[in-house]
Amino acid sequence: MSTASSIRETRTVVCVDPHSEPLSQKNIHNRWHPDIPPVASVAEGEVFKVECCDFTGNHIVNDDVADDVLEWDWHRDHHLSGPIQVENAQPGDALAIDILDVQPFPNRLWGFSLIDPGLGALDQPHTRVAKTIWDFDGVMTSSRHIKGVSFCGRPHCGVIGTAPSQKLLQTWVSREDALNDRYRIHGVECAQMPAERGAYVGQDLPDDVLSRIKTNGARTKPAREHGGNIDSASLTRGSRIYLPVFVPGAILSVGDLHFSEGDGEPTCAIEMAGIATLRCKVIRNGVAKLGLRAPMVVSSPAEPLYRDQLVFHGLSVDRNGVQQRSDLTTGFVEAASNAMEYLEKFGYSHEQAYSLMATAPTEARVLAVPNIPNANVSLGLPTKIFDFDILPTEDGPQASDRGSVAYLTPDREKRFLAERKIGESPFKRPQ
Amino acid sequence: MSTASSIRETRTVVCVDPHSEPLSQKNIHNRWHPDIPPVASVAEGEVFKVECCDFTGNHIVNDDVADDVLEWDWHRDHHLSGPIQVENAQPGDALAIDILDVQPFPNRLWGFSLIDPGLGALDQPHTRVAKTIWDFDGVMTSSRHIKGVSFCGRPHCGVIGTAPSQKLLQTWVSREDALNDRYRIHGVECAQMPAERGAYVGQDLPDDVLSRIKTNGARTKPAREHGGNIDSASLTRGSRIYLPVFVPGAILSVGDLHFSEGDGEPTCAIEMAGIATLRCKVIRNGVAKLGLRAPMVVSSPAEPLYRDQLVFHGLSVDRNGVQQRSDLTTGFVEAASNAMEYLEKFGYSHEQAYSLMATAPTEARVLAVPNIPNANVSLGLPTKIFDFDILPTEDGPQASDRGSVAYLTPDREKRFLAERKIGESPFKRPQ
Amino acid sequence: MSTASSIRETRTVVCVDPHSEPLSQKNIHNRWHPDIPPVASVAEGEVFKVECCDFTGNHIVNDDVADDVLEWDWHRDHHLSGPIQVENAQPGDALAIDILDVQPFPNRLWGFSLIDPGLGALDQPHTRVAKTIWDFDGVMTSSRHIKGVSFCGRPHCGVIGTAPSQKLLQTWVSREDALNDRYRIHGVECAQMPAERGAYVGQDLPDDVLSRIKTNGARTKPAREHGGNIDSASLTRGSRIYLPVFVPGAILSVGDLHFSEGDGEPTCAIEMAGIATLRCKVIRNGVAKLGLRAPMVVSSPAEPLYRDQLVFHGLSVDRNGVQQRSDLTTGFVEAASNAMEYLEKFGYSHEQAYSLMATAPTEARVLAVPNIPNANVSLGLPTKIFDFDILPTEDGPQASDRGSVAYLTPDREKRFLAERKIGESPFKRPQ
Amino acid sequence: MSTASSIRETRTVVCVDPHSEPLSQKNIHNRWHPDIPPVASVAEGEVFKVECCDFTGNHIVNDDVADDVLEWDWHRDHHLSGPIQVENAQPGDALAIDILDVQPFPNRLWGFSLIDPGLGALDQPHTRVAKTIWDFDGVMTSSRHIKGVSFCGRPHCGVIGTAPSQKLLQTWVSREDALNDRYRIHGVECAQMPAERGAYVGQDLPDDVLSRIKTNGARTKPAREHGGNIDSASLTRGSRIYLPVFVPGAILSVGDLHFSEGDGEPTCAIEMAGIATLRCKVIRNGVAKLGLRAPMVVSSPAEPLYRDQLVFHGLSVDRNGVQQRSDLTTGFVEAASNAMEYLEKFGYSHEQAYSLMATAPTEARVLAVPNIPNANVSLGLPTKIFDFDILPTEDGPQASDRGSVAYLTPDREKRFLAERKIGESPFKRPQ
Repeated sequence: MSTASSIRETRTVVCVDPHSEPLSQKNIHNRWHPDIPPVASVAEGEVFKVECCDFTGNHIVNDDVADDVLEWDWHRDHHLSGPIQVENAQPGDALAIDILDVQPFPNRLWGFSLIDPGLGALDQPHTRVAKTIWDFDGVMTSSRHIKGVSFCGRPHCGVIGTAPSQKLLQTWVSREDALNDRYRIHGVECAQMPAERGAYVGQDLPDDVLSRIKTNGARTKPAREHGGNIDSASLTRGSRIYLPVFVPGAILSVGDLHFSEGDGEPTCAIEMAGIATLRCKVIRNGVAKLGLRAPMVVSSPAEPLYRDQLVFHGLSVDRNGVQQRSDLTTGFVEAASNAMEYLEKFGYSHEQAYSLMATAPTEARVLAVPNIPNANVSLGLPTKIFDFDILPTEDGPQASDRGSVAYLTPDREKRFLAERKIGESPFKRPQ
Repeated sequence: MSTASSIRETRTVVCVDPHSEPLSQKNIHNRWHPDIPPVASVAEGEVFKVECCDFTGNHIVNDDVADDVLEWDWHRDHHLSGPIQVENAQPGDALAIDILDVQPFPNRLWGFSLIDPGLGALDQPHTRVAKTIWDFDGVMTSSRHIKGVSFCGRPHCGVIGTAPSQKLLQTWVSREDALNDRYRIHGVECAQMPAERGAYVGQDLPDDVLSRIKTNGARTKPAREHGGNIDSASLTRGSRIYLPVFVPGAILSVGDLHFSEGDGEPTCAIEMAGIATLRCKVIRNGVAKLGLRAPMVVSSPAEPLYRDQLVFHGLSVDRNGVQQRSDLTTGFVEAASNAMEYLEKFGYSHEQAYSLMATAPTEARVLAVPNIPNANVSLGLPTKIFDFDILPTEDGPQASDRGSVAYLTPDREKRFLAERKIGESPFKRPQ
Repeated sequence: MSTASSIRETRTVVCVDPHSEPLSQKNIHNRWHPDIPPVASVAEGEVFKVECCDFTGNHIVNDDVADDVLEWDWHRDHHLSGPIQVENAQPGDALAIDILDVQPFPNRLWGFSLIDPGLGALDQPHTRVAKTIWDFDGVMTSSRHIKGVSFCGRPHCGVIGTAPSQKLLQTWVSREDALNDRYRIHGVECAQMPAERGAYVGQDLPDDVLSRIKTNGARTKPAREHGGNIDSASLTRGSRIYLPVFVPGAILSVGDLHFSEGDGEPTCAIEMAGIATLRCKVIRNGVAKLGLRAPMVVSSPAEPLYRDQLVFHGLSVDRNGVQQRSDLTTGFVEAASNAMEYLEKFGYSHEQAYSLMATAPTEARVLAVPNIPNANVSLGLPTKIFDFDILPTEDGPQASDRGSVAYLTPDREKRFLAERKIGESPFKRPQ
Repeated sequence: MSTASSIRETRTVVCVDPHSEPLSQKNIHNRWHPDIPPVASVAEGEVFKVECCDFTGNHIVNDDVADDVLEWDWHRDHHLSGPIQVENAQPGDALAIDILDVQPFPNRLWGFSLIDPGLGALDQPHTRVAKTIWDFDGVMTSSRHIKGVSFCGRPHCGVIGTAPSQKLLQTWVSREDALNDRYRIHGVECAQMPAERGAYVGQDLPDDVLSRIKTNGARTKPAREHGGNIDSASLTRGSRIYLPVFVPGAILSVGDLHFSEGDGEPTCAIEMAGIATLRCKVIRNGVAKLGLRAPMVVSSPAEPLYRDQLVFHGLSVDRNGVQQRSDLTTGFVEAASNAMEYLEKFGYSHEQAYSLMATAPTEARVLAVPNIPNANVSLGLPTKIFDFDILPTEDGPQASDRGSVAYLTPDREKRFLAERKIGESPFKRPQ
């Protein structure tokens, strides 16, 4: 009976199909480049929705073996939605984006976290390829692969960014190439350079444009000054992010949705396909006014609060007992590794504990940076997400059956172990 | 009229005088060494108080010039109180310490933060020697040197640690020496090695013992597996810390009290002299039971909560535009520098903003570590601590008079600039 | 490409149409009676969805006049969905219901709050009939009828309850009738008794059964020991409620969804049509085990937290200066009235302020009850929901244009004022 | 070595002796009257300390029998400190008082809670006279009389108020007398009228002045528009309260310090002697500007946050099954009684559970007021304050030994039961 003409509609400005092959979908791309034309346009103040595939473009299957993890080509991440033009936004402006909601697709109420040795921050020599599937029950999630744990999500867009100008793109490529140069002698790839392999733009574009984008487009792995792969759980619904505008129309891309993420995201968060509800406002000359060198965020009153934590600490001494130079990355790795070993005492496997570090609502905080040679990091594990008491007791932790993550099929694992390249992982901190 | 015999008394087991020269005080020491005898003993479950000088041993004066900063010999930190023997604690046990309270001395209701270029995490070439004095008004603090800001403290012991065994001490020295060796070629001191200069133990000890402690005692600058200079604001009243025991009686030392501290403590927190109220419990064989490789902490329901934050981000690209290899330390420095530049737009000086980074209840969190080449860090600035609105607006920040920190007297500053050693600061991250 | 067989589906067990006349819809009823047959059945542990009309059954229109408020027959509330049978639940058991999510219909992203003088807790002689429409933008809401305000919702089911047994139903009717008897001399209806007027059950039932339900079914206005109209904003997603079971299968009904509600809900909350996602667990003999005399709730870590509040107080002295006997109801009315008067100083109308009391995330707390003759109540207004500073300043509040609520059309208002019955409102506290 | 002249001193402007008889102490009074001269004066902006006896004036002893409870004459409460003149405050101004700290005396680290049947909100016919002693360990408290519980305090001044003008005093007396008149027929004292019995002002005053104060001074039991016995745990350190000024100099009195208090304070909070640290600011004509009819409070970021709660509900049906007219007071009583019965299932006695309702950091919130005939109230019990899990489980609560409160000596109890007046308690809600 509601007949009012004043009802506001929420437009879905970008549609994708989370159940079909991404490489035939129009609204998807996986590189940053100023020549990717917008697929939609929104007005200032308009509330709009953007549908997103998971970062793998629907590659990962909801089952109990992890073979699909190895079949995934990391050159293909992230399958982003858009880009979207924001009316009136001009270079030098700041774009204020209200993150009004982030939800999974109603008919795809699950997500996944992957462990792919060599690509995460907490890999050990014995770390196995693994996958955990997470079911979404309203605001809560739990996994059949990790017993005894459930928690509220902090759904967010892992990636949200504006298009770089041609000049900025060049800056990115140059400085990252220079980094790779400095480390080439060690045989380490410190940054992923533009590569046609895996590159995709789902639009009918002239060949030369398409080729330019694929050949020169910046990779989406890192966050940069335009936003990008920020991977911040605090960017959950109710928050606002300020991004600089580099090209007319801002040309916004969104993707890599997470249902939940642990601070530091040492391996995959809970990755999902879903829908972001957004609203943009333009602050004229905002880059200069606000001094916007990197994204700024206004926190959300709706961010779930797990107040009670068991907090682990990590110093700049690595697991081999080697003193590293005052270094927060080592600190984070050590704090998380300490938390993992503690959880393993309750019966969790290494891979379960690892997955929890990347998915549960942990809080990793930077402690005293100048206290050479140990810059430490704390990692708070919320006590309430476990259905048993994890606080230290007289008797210490007692092990129980906690189920199992999905691993490779035996043959596949054998092959993987035989083939694996020994070597430093690309993300690892410098020595 | 209260005549009950059942009233529990709280013993002050370690006394110091926060108004007099520390080098004649019995209960103070500034090195870690197993041969420092306990000056007091406490029972399990007993509530006790420990008085502490500020980390400089009362060197810094409550006035409006910063010359005393340069007169301070950093080889003398930290003036710790104790050590204290905990009855029944044995090597291999875990010591659970309830941090029941941390308060300034009632007749010394002020603290200080220092900026000494070369020693902090956010130094710029133009950073000046500076000092801010903070007045304590109950749970609140504010500074005549930084207008427009006041906040609740998170009082805590910057340093709390058990004595190392002889073997652990040797491990520390070896691994830190090895680090220095690796970097000697760059002319950088990455760790402070044992040094007689500035060493102090306020007890009448045989000459050989005293000499051994001074010559071999570990420096107190970094946190290590025994606790030590953890500098965590979450270790405030109401929290509990678990430390490993390495020698009979645990032999606990406490000091470096802070009224408040920003995450990362890029330069001095609000340093104060004061009183810690503690209670210890022993978990038999707790090191093995809990897998205690570094301190564990149970968070406090009493930690002040500043829910609303303006959050800055920092990537692994430094202020010169150079891409660093994925590195949280750069990320922290950049996030904090971005916050500082934003505050400077409101009229705060570089030194005021710097001091706020180390003193205000900021929250620095580790974001996506494996996103090479940019591991980012967020730094949340609580909006409510300012008496004006710091959130971004259409017009951007407006500058106002915000007062001034204490600087060097002009002559002293001239001399300082002439003499200053150009070079990398000892804490700085590796390249 | 997702082909897994292990994907859990979330069944919608009760469907309604939020856009059509409720009195022809099968799954709706508006009385409590043990003879209403279940329309669906769920298993223990199953996640399921229940669609709900707003409490008026889609009567209220999204427009800018309030005439529909007067056309609504309060004998028709609440249009509940269900009832739903929970397998294995038996009388004496406790039903643990996880509130996994509560969302508006995706194509009906708005709600309303009504003011109907005589029915609210804060009515003044000059209170006008009014309506405010609230738009839902993801987790946030704002109203074109009240400028300067927006906030995160705390979506919840206002009504959730199990079916009464025949005996319990009789107890309800008897005790409420006795109350009416005691007050009949004052001409006040203290409780709404069963009434055929407005009664509805959307099922094909034998005439005698239908007649029995309509004649004897308990009204849904109050909460009772089975749950019912609890109207608690804390019952938001992520929480769990324990309800007693009185009949086989528990026979659960749900409705009266709110997007947000102020404590005390002095007039309508933000009423909406929407979808609840639930999961039930049965605790055998839980009523006796837990001593379950009224609903118990486990709070949600996802409840939005507005930490900073401006808190008003109310004593047991009414607005006429008459000292009431120590009474929390007067205290609540006074605290909320004080908050309203304060808001009016900023330019809000009486009706805007009134609507905010029932819709914004306020926190009303009970203070010292035995302090005769004044039992006071505090009402905390979150400061952050306003886009201006509401804290007291030297100059006091400054009035601005805050828009206008929807009122009656002039003719209708004239008629209303002419016809209105002067008299005490039915909810009012005793004298 | 600190020699600065700029150190601010915190003056203690009112001293009391918490260990001696209050009736010979100069700075104490226990009535509100404009003719009580100030004993001290403070400047605007000055931080100052006020020492306070507990509300009984040191009558209650730290021991394990409760006989002293019955020896206490309730006509003597509350022993307030002051009054204190605030320079420049004029009638019509608002006084903004920062509650900077509230602490127990360092040599009196304990408090008490009393149960005196007839005076509390949750009395049952079988409620016994009882006392619990609480030890203060820094910010934490626990009681040897109630095992298994400890929590952070929310220290606050139960009483803080400005002096009434002669006219306001007359208003108070008139309206409270009128209330008593209305209920005299029921033999119930609804308000305590001025009475010389127990009245005390510790100053050398002319006989006629002293007599006037004692004969006409308002009782301190209730909160009133000037503040007074607000008993709000949210008024803890870090908060600010706005009070109206009725006489020149504001003439502020403070007392009834609590270490902790449960919402509703159904019987004594944790009463203590201690020291309040305050700072006052004057808002000229603040009463009119702010519409200050009752105290306004700005919440504290330092208020401890116990986020996880088990929440009980109370309707307007009393424990005898009688339906009361929609009434929050019944709701509070029922919610708290339900919580108590639940706790008793764990082995707590009625008196232990009762004491917890008044001392633990509970949160009692007002739910739907107009839902006749049941206005309900929720009472959230923080789960973390117990050293065992209080959440509902399959098996329900298990009883354990929880110790015992202090009761009367057997002879005294026999005498008490023989003499006790049967009758309604004075605070009870109207029928």
